[in-house]
Amino acid sequence: MTVRQLSLPELANACWHSGVPGVGLWREPVQEFGVEAAAKLFKDAGLAVTTLCRGGFFTAVDPAERRRALDDNRAAIEEAATLGTDTLVLVSGGLPAGDKDLAGARERIADALAELGPYAAEHGVRLAIEPLHPMYAADRCVVSTLGQALDLAERFPAEQVGVCVDTYHIWWDDQAPAGIARAGAGGRLYSFQLADWTTPLPEGVLTGRGQLGDGSIDFAYWCDLVDRAGYAGPIEVELFNAELWARQDGEAVLRETAEAFRRVVPEAL
Amino acid sequence: MTVRQLSLPELANACWHSGVPGVGLWREPVQEFGVEAAAKLFKDAGLAVTTLCRGGFFTAVDPAERRRALDDNRAAIEEAATLGTDTLVLVSGGLPAGDKDLAGARERIADALAELGPYAAEHGVRLAIEPLHPMYAADRCVVSTLGQALDLAERFPAEQVGVCVDTYHIWWDDQAPAGIARAGAGGRLYSFQLADWTTPLPEGVLTGRGQLGDGSIDFAYWCDLVDRAGYAGPIEVELFNAELWARQDGEAVLRETAEAFRRVVPEAL
Repeated sequence: MTVRQLSLPELANACWHSGVPGVGLWREPVQEFGVEAAAKLFKDAGLAVTTLCRGGFFTAVDPAERRRALDDNRAAIEEAATLGTDTLVLVSGGLPAGDKDLAGARERIADALAELGPYAAEHGVRLAIEPLHPMYAADRCVVSTLGQALDLAERFPAEQVGVCVDTYHIWWDDQAPAGIARAGAGGRLYSFQLADWTTPLPEGVLTGRGQLGDGSIDFAYWCDLVDRAGYAGPIEVELFNAELWARQDGEAVLRETAEAFRRVVPEAL
Repeated sequence: MTVRQLSLPELANACWHSGVPGVGLWREPVQEFGVEAAAKLFKDAGLAVTTLCRGGFFTAVDPAERRRALDDNRAAIEEAATLGTDTLVLVSGGLPAGDKDLAGARERIADALAELGPYAAEHGVRLAIEPLHPMYAADRCVVSTLGQALDLAERFPAEQVGVCVDTYHIWWDDQAPAGIARAGAGGRLYSFQLADWTTPLPEGVLTGRGQLGDGSIDFAYWCDLVDRAGYAGPIEVELFNAELWARQDGEAVLRETAEAFRRVVPEAL
């Protein structure tokens, strides 16, 4: 998503040139390219598919909508398995229109996880609940803190449901360090993503994630916490950034991002 | 601030016509009008001054800047006393430019409170730390949760430092209900404010607070929590809303806001 202006073959090529060993993919471009074809593309390029993004959107009340969401998540699990990644990242969904019941919406997420967890396990896929910044609580994700994500995840087997920690969403939270330790100790720290916090936020607050090093986040601090929690998986960079997307030279964006990564992430990791 | 298009005399008049018994004031219009004159205006109108907003901005590192902030807060305390309110609301300040140390910034707030608490008490004024939504952590207020605000406040006497709870800032937080109970039990629930959460957020995320009832917040739920925590003080409405500000008919905005208040706040409160 950081370089969504690149086609999947361009992405594979650019990763190779920038020394990036793996990619987190989003479903839409994969579906357009063909899931099997994408799997072959990245396998042939020697690139790991680190995660697939995104399942989720579990908060509907309407039974037909809920059924559609479950069906769509089963398809996402199958796609993840085909791509060879063991992690499907979940954006859980916001409040239904007119609804003000956050606790109820969170409970409907649990209902969906109970149904999808075993299905994912059968396919060798784990479900990673991603807490999104509280500014998305109404319209995107009612899971706003790592603590909430873990409270949900821990109701299910540690092999089935865990969390995805993205610095952009949790950097402000003084409880998040304890949450990272808790996730690590419980075997639920499935994924770790980086983006920087820059201001002012753009209208709609979706496309203003900063390049690593341009904002307020102390990456060395968060990387160290994740390391001490026993995380040894990939570290992804996920920048929703309108300025980066507008650039024609997507390969240069990827290269600069890889350079920024090497500047902010301690070498030992 | 909800009807900042009104002059203070217009505000006093509009409150009278809408049956609003008190006003929370901001320093800038009060200073322009004259603090003593404003005090007399609202006293003569039979309107309580519920709070003065805002002190704070304690996070500077530079010693000269820190001295200026303390001086300015002493002036704010004196203004609050002159206006006859016992509560000065604090917006604590964001990260200094280039700084990434949230914990350090929070500690500098504590340093300032240690100095200002006794001064405020001498003037019959209490300092209310307002946690601001986490989306303001970088540029406005590093105190992002009610829990963080209470952790700070509880280092000082309960007569000196407490919290201001605004639904807009804490509605997403599943730990906030426990925080309200904790604030009430400790005698630190100084102020309660309402604004609704509406999306999409505008650029800069400052001026998109929704009219009561237009958004995602369950006011009956939060009012009940505050009531059960023993709060018997005023309930303020603070809407930063560019559309409301653009209207010429500020008195109608106030009247509509009072009507919205009566719809969403349980009658018993």
